[in-house]
Amino acid sequence: MRRKDFEGESSGAGEILDRAEVGQLGLTDAEGWPRIIPVNFARDGGSIYFHGAAEGEKYTLLRNGARVTFLAYLAFSIIPSYWRSKDYACPAGAFYKSVHIRGACSIVQSAQEKAAALNMIMEKYQPEGGYNKISADDPLYVKALQETVIFRVESGQVSVKGKLGQNLPPETRRYLISKLLERNTGPDRITADEMGKTLQ
Amino acid sequence: MRRKDFEGESSGAGEILDRAEVGQLGLTDAEGWPRIIPVNFARDGGSIYFHGAAEGEKYTLLRNGARVTFLAYLAFSIIPSYWRSKDYACPAGAFYKSVHIRGACSIVQSAQEKAAALNMIMEKYQPEGGYNKISADDPLYVKALQETVIFRVESGQVSVKGKLGQNLPPETRRYLISKLLERNTGPDRITADEMGKTLQ
Repeated sequence: MRRKDFEGESSGAGEILDRAEVGQLGLTDAEGWPRIIPVNFARDGGSIYFHGAAEGEKYTLLRNGARVTFLAYLAFSIIPSYWRSKDYACPAGAFYKSVHIRGACSIVQSAQEKAAALNMIMEKYQPEGGYNKISADDPLYVKALQETVIFRVESGQVSVKGKLGQNLPPETRRYLISKLLERNTGPDRITADEMGKTLQ
Repeated sequence: MRRKDFEGESSGAGEILDRAEVGQLGLTDAEGWPRIIPVNFARDGGSIYFHGAAEGEKYTLLRNGARVTFLAYLAFSIIPSYWRSKDYACPAGAFYKSVHIRGACSIVQSAQEKAAALNMIMEKYQPEGGYNKISADDPLYVKALQETVIFRVESGQVSVKGKLGQNLPPETRRYLISKLLERNTGPDRITADEMGKTLQ
């Protein structure tokens, strides 16, 4: 059932997508303006699912099989300049990991695939459960499934990026890790873990 | 010195932009593909500033005065379905506030405006200080200012959106606020504050 996963150079894409709470869907509207639609989403291999109503902006923009880009961005720690320089502001920076996907968006027609996609979204955002599983056969969900539109983006070109000090000398990275663990606010511990992977 | 701020229907835009750590810049590339570039940024009234190098993808995509969209999105709490229904998954949702801007991107030429923009970015991300202010006259920064490209997006059409339960009955909102304060993890307290504003 699980679709083919990301491989090779894009093998880190799946983990970034799974950890991202919000994804950004980019497209160009009928007047040629770029648009960004933030979405909660789940993925099945290289397929990304999100939902909306059968009306309104998202539906109008996406109904015609648009070429889209999908971005998931994980913001790690802000590194202050003074960890590396007493005076000079330029060593300041924001660490992150991201995945950029080019793909085509389509609207899911099958009630079974719609239910499966909604269950994946529920499992991602409400992993503790506490609801009846969504099923096309359950009278509880028949109307909701009819009214909900599920969009699917199939991944084409995939690009994984990151800034985690990977171009700094190993001793500088070890020093920044120690500073992150000492400060230990917000995402500092996660950032230190991610930086540690660049030293392996 | 401070530029004209957002007014009227877009008056909440400034606060969302100031609170957002990352903004998404949307544009369409030469081959017609939508692109999203995540940026750290600062704003001066309705002008948004971010920086990059005089080479590479961002510079290539933006150098020709592109039509862009800029999105700042504040993710608030995930509301689990079981706060409102024992079985039905559909009351689950993600609360947020966002601002979408249409504008034109240009490259800042003046060394003084570049320095001012970089100081605004430093003040936003490193408010505690700990660096020498960036100045076009300071030998410490002459080379960095030459090598850094500052992009400016001038806001045109501005749209503020939000999902904070504002269409729910006041008693449901009060109940959700009490559940958020009881759970009190991640952004729950901030979400409760934001929901409280919808009741005023």
